[in-house]
Amino acid sequence: MGDSAAVNGDKTERTVSEEVSRVVESAKLLQDSAYSLISTSSREEDALRQRALTLDSTIRRLRSSIASSIEIGKLDSKEAEKLHEELCRASYMLNEGDTAAFVPNKFSGRFLRMFLGPINVHATRKDVKLKVKEEYNSFRDRTAFLFLFFPSLLLVLRSWMWNGCLPALPVQLYQAWLLFLYTGLALRENILRVNGSDIRPWWIYHHYFAMAMALISLTWEIEREPNCAQKQKGVQLFLQWAIMQGVAMLLQNRYQRQRLYTRIAMGKARIMDVVWGETAGVEGQLWLLAPILFILQGFEAYVGMLLLKAALVGVVSEWQVITSGILLIIMAVGNFLNTVQILGAKSRFKAKMKKSKNNQRSLERL
Amino acid sequence: MGDSAAVNGDKTERTVSEEVSRVVESAKLLQDSAYSLISTSSREEDALRQRALTLDSTIRRLRSSIASSIEIGKLDSKEAEKLHEELCRASYMLNEGDTAAFVPNKFSGRFLRMFLGPINVHATRKDVKLKVKEEYNSFRDRTAFLFLFFPSLLLVLRSWMWNGCLPALPVQLYQAWLLFLYTGLALRENILRVNGSDIRPWWIYHHYFAMAMALISLTWEIEREPNCAQKQKGVQLFLQWAIMQGVAMLLQNRYQRQRLYTRIAMGKARIMDVVWGETAGVEGQLWLLAPILFILQGFEAYVGMLLLKAALVGVVSEWQVITSGILLIIMAVGNFLNTVQILGAKSRFKAKMKKSKNNQRSLERL
Repeated sequence: MGDSAAVNGDKTERTVSEEVSRVVESAKLLQDSAYSLISTSSREEDALRQRALTLDSTIRRLRSSIASSIEIGKLDSKEAEKLHEELCRASYMLNEGDTAAFVPNKFSGRFLRMFLGPINVHATRKDVKLKVKEEYNSFRDRTAFLFLFFPSLLLVLRSWMWNGCLPALPVQLYQAWLLFLYTGLALRENILRVNGSDIRPWWIYHHYFAMAMALISLTWEIEREPNCAQKQKGVQLFLQWAIMQGVAMLLQNRYQRQRLYTRIAMGKARIMDVVWGETAGVEGQLWLLAPILFILQGFEAYVGMLLLKAALVGVVSEWQVITSGILLIIMAVGNFLNTVQILGAKSRFKAKMKKSKNNQRSLERL
Repeated sequence: MGDSAAVNGDKTERTVSEEVSRVVESAKLLQDSAYSLISTSSREEDALRQRALTLDSTIRRLRSSIASSIEIGKLDSKEAEKLHEELCRASYMLNEGDTAAFVPNKFSGRFLRMFLGPINVHATRKDVKLKVKEEYNSFRDRTAFLFLFFPSLLLVLRSWMWNGCLPALPVQLYQAWLLFLYTGLALRENILRVNGSDIRPWWIYHHYFAMAMALISLTWEIEREPNCAQKQKGVQLFLQWAIMQGVAMLLQNRYQRQRLYTRIAMGKARIMDVVWGETAGVEGQLWLLAPILFILQGFEAYVGMLLLKAALVGVVSEWQVITSGILLIIMAVGNFLNTVQILGAKSRFKAKMKKSKNNQRSLERL
């Protein structure tokens, strides 16, 4: 019996030790494969990057040579336009789709480096990019609901429970949430830009300003008992504006998604594009959104003015009031200019489309 | 002349258009290569990931079967230890080096997802990882200097220019910088962890607490003219503590770097490891650092107690004072426990090394 147990034990030992050495062997093999995969793909990536760079500079050279050829009359404008379009196609292929992963990024992303250091946030695989984009959209959806909910709650509680005087803590919690929200949005939008989204820089700057404002409003004393209703006028207006903003965000998110999908289907947009802010709206819906957006911007500027006025007539004399007022006015003006620009671009584009359709018709008539 | 110009123009047109079509052609080719590179490497990555997963589960199975074999006496402990060591080697190969890039990450990084969304911050290439690590170190170096400089400046100006009463704005700017700093550190440390660093979770939690505290201190009213010297006692103590912290950080950074390089050279550490906080110190230097760290922690807890006391006796009754006090005490206790743990682990490790050396000597004597 003892002998047999020893033999049995010996057998187990051998089998386990065989398995262990087999595991060590496969770990080594796996390491070798990983090493060779990484080094091969790094080498191939570098080669592709080189080719992309060369092609990029060739395209730029050809563009300027076409322009100078037109100037000295060597090229007629019709032919030039055709060549220009072909170059655009080549440039599109280079900067979009799979090649984009290997084109060195022109966008440096100081903001991202400041917070994250030099880590690369460029996704090579399309499915990852799409996931990032989708999450950004759902983050904005969740945000819009909270954007509507928090200030409404504060204002309701103010008149129901707090007798017209907001206590500091809930307002400060809301402001801290705003700071977190705008930081998250700014970081995400920078990441989208690194991944090839064409988001307008203004919307990112807008979030930097909003971050600054949230930070400043945190240092702002909310509660001061004698005539707090007057002193809290600014906060109250800001909360009302935030509610309107929440409604507008919900509308925008819905219509932008629809519009983006339409544009992608029409081949006019890429999957990573963001139609943030005022570029939204499927035709008719744009005429619903545009007035809402202009009213919002007007109200934003109005709140800014009221804050400045409050500071100047001396009701509240803190620097935070003046700075918040200025920031709100800057954001309102920037938003307004960008909306007008986009609407202008849209109508120019439509006019051009109409013209080219007319041209086509006259060509067809010939 | 006119004819010749036309011929010339025609020639230019043809050469440019030839070049343009060549460019379009190479853009297409480049796109194809990019597509095939991405799809090939994705497929190979998936295969490697599958192999890594299988190997990982095999290692786990073998570990438990070795443990049970010892229990029922089928395997003697010496043999088991040998097998265990070999499995450790295999596991090390799997989780470090090049294979690590393909092992699905166990660390999920909720904090990163909250701020950045689902973007992947895992670097595949070793040079990128090293750059991230190096930047983290230099970020900490810069930070340590500012950590020393800002509070010193505030305290100096307080007694030279501000007659013992700190104005709100400079203090709030400092607090905003602290918030940015701790957010940056927490994000970077999470990224390091994703990239395989063994940083102790406590140091990351510590930075979350510090973020909360910076945020809270922003909402804290600094200036209140009647007897501000008494009311600002807490702020003043906090600034003094920050200066000490700055000195300790500078010492730590220097010695940690030395120690990390020594450990890497000895094969005991990996390049991505962080010897943050109290794990620092090359032997003798540890006995310089440890007392400084304990004093710092004591002072941190003392400041926390003073804040609590100030709130309880009613000098300052804001919730911020109580919360900051509690946070400081939590951080001090956590830091203390972690330091003691690390020192304990160090001395156990040393004792073990000594014992194994003695064993080796007695073996050599045989």
